[in-house]
Amino acid sequence: MKKTIIFLITSFFLLNHAQSQEKQPADLLIFGGTVVTMNQNREIIEDGAIAIKNGNIVSVGKSSKLRSLYKAKLTINASGRVVIPGLINTHTHIPMVLFRGIADDMDLQDWLTNYIFPAEAKNVNEDFVRAGTRLGLAELIKGGTTTYCDMYYFEDAIAEETAKAGVRAILGETLIDFPAPDNKTFEDALKYTENFIKKWKGHRLITPAIAPHAPYTVSKEHLLLARQLSDKFDVPLIIHLAEAETETEFTLKNFGLRPIEYLEKIGFFNKKTILAHVIQATAEEISLLKKYDVGIAHNPQSNMKLAAGIAPIPLMLKENLRVGLGTDGAASNNDLNLWEEMDTAAKIHKVFNKDPKAASAVQIFEMATIGGARALHLEKFIGSIEEGKRADIVLVNFNSLHQTPMYNLYSHLVYATKASDVDTVIIDGKIIMKNGRLLTLNENAIKREANFYKQKIVKSLRSNSN
Amino acid sequence: MKKTIIFLITSFFLLNHAQSQEKQPADLLIFGGTVVTMNQNREIIEDGAIAIKNGNIVSVGKSSKLRSLYKAKLTINASGRVVIPGLINTHTHIPMVLFRGIADDMDLQDWLTNYIFPAEAKNVNEDFVRAGTRLGLAELIKGGTTTYCDMYYFEDAIAEETAKAGVRAILGETLIDFPAPDNKTFEDALKYTENFIKKWKGHRLITPAIAPHAPYTVSKEHLLLARQLSDKFDVPLIIHLAEAETETEFTLKNFGLRPIEYLEKIGFFNKKTILAHVIQATAEEISLLKKYDVGIAHNPQSNMKLAAGIAPIPLMLKENLRVGLGTDGAASNNDLNLWEEMDTAAKIHKVFNKDPKAASAVQIFEMATIGGARALHLEKFIGSIEEGKRADIVLVNFNSLHQTPMYNLYSHLVYATKASDVDTVIIDGKIIMKNGRLLTLNENAIKREANFYKQKIVKSLRSNSN
Repeated sequence: MKKTIIFLITSFFLLNHAQSQEKQPADLLIFGGTVVTMNQNREIIEDGAIAIKNGNIVSVGKSSKLRSLYKAKLTINASGRVVIPGLINTHTHIPMVLFRGIADDMDLQDWLTNYIFPAEAKNVNEDFVRAGTRLGLAELIKGGTTTYCDMYYFEDAIAEETAKAGVRAILGETLIDFPAPDNKTFEDALKYTENFIKKWKGHRLITPAIAPHAPYTVSKEHLLLARQLSDKFDVPLIIHLAEAETETEFTLKNFGLRPIEYLEKIGFFNKKTILAHVIQATAEEISLLKKYDVGIAHNPQSNMKLAAGIAPIPLMLKENLRVGLGTDGAASNNDLNLWEEMDTAAKIHKVFNKDPKAASAVQIFEMATIGGARALHLEKFIGSIEEGKRADIVLVNFNSLHQTPMYNLYSHLVYATKASDVDTVIIDGKIIMKNGRLLTLNENAIKREANFYKQKIVKSLRSNSN
Repeated sequence: MKKTIIFLITSFFLLNHAQSQEKQPADLLIFGGTVVTMNQNREIIEDGAIAIKNGNIVSVGKSSKLRSLYKAKLTINASGRVVIPGLINTHTHIPMVLFRGIADDMDLQDWLTNYIFPAEAKNVNEDFVRAGTRLGLAELIKGGTTTYCDMYYFEDAIAEETAKAGVRAILGETLIDFPAPDNKTFEDALKYTENFIKKWKGHRLITPAIAPHAPYTVSKEHLLLARQLSDKFDVPLIIHLAEAETETEFTLKNFGLRPIEYLEKIGFFNKKTILAHVIQATAEEISLLKKYDVGIAHNPQSNMKLAAGIAPIPLMLKENLRVGLGTDGAASNNDLNLWEEMDTAAKIHKVFNKDPKAASAVQIFEMATIGGARALHLEKFIGSIEEGKRADIVLVNFNSLHQTPMYNLYSHLVYATKASDVDTVIIDGKIIMKNGRLLTLNENAIKREANFYKQKIVKSLRSNSN
């Protein structure tokens, strides 16, 4: 009894003391959730909190502590939820959601030459790209993705839509040696890209980038012009590399080298390079990639669907390469869902390497968060919940039937959680989705637009076959 | 003008005529949806309807026609929805949902010997099995699965829970040559199984079955006793077969034969046999399986996660074997989600066979419906929406962002639709889930029970390591 009274009196004074101290202001305080930080020690904080100010994380810790230290304009009670760094999709062609499922179950060249390229040539203009981007953004946000790395045409329009929706992105304008929907010559595309970079460089959400399509669609001279532009403005240099056996045959035939060797020899790689796919890679080539410290976007579902092959990810992880996960475009996946990509990645490397220990749940969750940030050379800013980083944070419900019961957090994040479990999404400190409702995009208008373009696309392909 | 009047008058009389005719009674009429019948011609009926009476489908056709022919006690407006045959999960260990994610990223023998078998020995009793079954049933229903084929212990309790929830199942009591949670000897288990069969044989939802575990855990004599019981009562005979390389090594070493050859030689296969996995199968062995007309449960996600290998499904489909899809137990998947299983199946065979045309969307959707029915030797009753079959029907929302836009129904069912898109589930003519709400199970109570058992399991494994 006496002890209780002393305890109560002490508590009262301590509480009073904390309250009498000036609390620090914050814009947003998330508290009461299980915080999966993905910091260096992979710390998980039960009943954890995050204080956010000016779009940045200013403190991470126990709820009790942060609630006594901060006075926030807005609070989110994350109790019963798991709080994770926003997911990072390292390879997309975002407007291609409008081609979702337009042509399946065929080989890469057939698919590109007879469906995707004609459909693009006949339909892709700036309005199409804007509509597709809005649809893709909505899907990304709903699935808890806060950063994506894109490669398409009209990237300036994509940048405008992305910034408006409050999503973070690296946006690479595609350079290719044939007339593209936005620019008819390589020179025009290069000029467009330079203007695009100048316009967006320094933007808080958008990182402009240069994306020569692939070694088999862009000449050596043009590849090097792209690299020069990347160096000049210090922006990312994105390329599809070593995706298909046909590509290896092409570079062997034309340059006497395998794709990775070829790009190395011509001096393509710089410290801002991001490579998509990298399936056809030997152990020596992986060492080479390590030397240049390039980022790698691994897209297992697209690679499986197009029968391109399985990238040697366990070896890359062993060599500590910068490896992230991507969905690729929705025409070859057929969604932008990183949860399914994680689940597949964890499983495919086990069976492919005949090793059930390959690609553990925590390694895979790393690839979708801090690994993705490293792949995009953005690990100083995103990928984990740490003081000083951008406040890109996702709240995940952990109470669905398919998540019940729960023994291990990482296991459940990778093998059991679905996009439909994502509850709330915060990007750069702003709430973009709350309890499953999009706050910066109009879902119904987006669907209407998408269906309008679908009709147009179907009509255009019909006239093609006539 | 004149024509319009004549048309209106004619329509009026026709309408009147139809109305004046005695309409036939039905229990339930689903109308206005896009009906994916999966009948022989793979017919898809736009604005289609299904009339149901006494648990059976009595008519399938255009909404306008069926609405004029039937007067139903209950109607469901399926407009904007896709109406499919209930999905069929051909291989589960349903109560193992309680072990979901308990031990990942390890090899099959380690996983079985050091985690699953001890956890089972210490925790599995009838109450555990009932709680796990309810959790698994809820997950199955939410994902649009209407029939599952199980293999576990206390199958009588599983049968009771399944019948109560209104779900269709083949339930195979496990026979194994070491003390099981329900029966300490093989003889006890055999006796239990016989009683179990007698109790449930002829039940409209439950098909009792016999499930000797595997060729490496059940002796030749016991395998043959199981087959005899299957013959005697004409009930399914379920077994794990040719799952792992270690199994092949075991039968080669002990019997000088590969697993399939061994079972054939001892005379195990009958016309009611259902084989789970069948990964280690040569072309000759596939011909053998064709000869015996056995069913095959393909579980790609489990096989990938345990690095067991990839079953030669394209070859089996070419030979027109009875192939269905399964999730396996949730301890090795980690869910009971057939949508993800379809997506994975469609992709894994492409990359594994280096053929992007392997396993098309329609072939995969067949495996989850009519193919699954064939694998379970139940194709006369389930697997398609056809007159005379059991009314196992699922309504799927097709309006989510990740399904927008839609070009091809089968592509979207396999590559884009998620379990969260399932809206309404009807089994044997009864509505089991309506607009995402379970009608025969209490979701909150199920979660509470699951968490109770989780605590118990964690404690039991801790005491193991001490």
